[in-house]
Amino acid sequence: MGNNLPEWRSRLASALHRNRAKYHSRYFQLATVSPEGLPKNRTVVFRGFLESTNIIQIITDSRSEKVAQITHNPWGEICWYFTKTREQFRISGELLLVDCNNSNSELIAARKAAWQKISDNARSQFIWPNPGEARTDDLTLFVPAMPSNQDPVSNFCLLLLTPQKVDHLELRGEPQNRCLYQLQSNGDWTTEVINP
Amino acid sequence: MGNNLPEWRSRLASALHRNRAKYHSRYFQLATVSPEGLPKNRTVVFRGFLESTNIIQIITDSRSEKVAQITHNPWGEICWYFTKTREQFRISGELLLVDCNNSNSELIAARKAAWQKISDNARSQFIWPNPGEARTDDLTLFVPAMPSNQDPVSNFCLLLLTPQKVDHLELRGEPQNRCLYQLQSNGDWTTEVINP
Repeated sequence: MGNNLPEWRSRLASALHRNRAKYHSRYFQLATVSPEGLPKNRTVVFRGFLESTNIIQIITDSRSEKVAQITHNPWGEICWYFTKTREQFRISGELLLVDCNNSNSELIAARKAAWQKISDNARSQFIWPNPGEARTDDLTLFVPAMPSNQDPVSNFCLLLLTPQKVDHLELRGEPQNRCLYQLQSNGDWTTEVINP
Repeated sequence: MGNNLPEWRSRLASALHRNRAKYHSRYFQLATVSPEGLPKNRTVVFRGFLESTNIIQIITDSRSEKVAQITHNPWGEICWYFTKTREQFRISGELLLVDCNNSNSELIAARKAAWQKISDNARSQFIWPNPGEARTDDLTLFVPAMPSNQDPVSNFCLLLLTPQKVDHLELRGEPQNRCLYQLQSNGDWTTEVINP
């Protein structure tokens, strides 16, 4: 990344700030493709940018279906709609799963930091019974002993999306404003104002 | 469709009702797959169900990129998050594009009805300059003569999603409640309560 933040980062920071009163402003929808070639889509939580980069952090459970999808096809597209300011960011790029076997020291540290930053409630979900299986009758399994708040459990994954294209649409314009940002091979971003 | 609405329809109707104060409750994110196999994701507006069916109606412009995507791969997955009641519906199924060349009389009528039902503002966007191209400097082109509110313009398309699987997650449960509904070949729906 160059010294300056790309323009879409300022636009996104502004949207996050102006919509900060709504907790759901930190939720977005992440689309991936299944090994069978089918589109998959779910709401996930924005966990900030990886330090000193434009890389978007998400967390996930290695038992989640999206993990197999990403292993097969690493592309993702985020659709992030801000309800108060009525604007949408579509952010596409490559996904990298950072699991317990990762050997890169910076990514190991980032995974650990992500674990430490989430709430006890969020951490406890990683020791719940297997997601997607028939509902476990024994409800005590959903309130097990709290895992350590220091070291991530083995199924905790950090999921990183490196943006390559950002399509920003503001519904409030007359006509609506739409701007496309694309990453070039030299690391610079192009900006094109396009028709909505 | 059988005589009775499937359970997910009641759940969705309830969510729409309880979130009705927020106009954005009628927006959801539709994921598709591009001809290159990449995930694509955008916010669209729920236009109700096709009469006497479980088929979800969306509208789109034949000039939109999603049209080529759907022609190549007709699968879609809707992710619909309701911000007030904090629940998510993931609805996957096959997409059918109903354009100006459709010859099915019921679908022709549904496309026309969808055109008549949208606002003047929504209709005018279909005669705006080509979406995605460099922004047209002449702003008068964005306020052209209003198209007929009776007969759809040729690039207006009705887009239909026939649900095959619905995954409903309520974040408010302790633990969260999650239920999976799947369409069987006989037209019935199965219901499975699963771990969140």
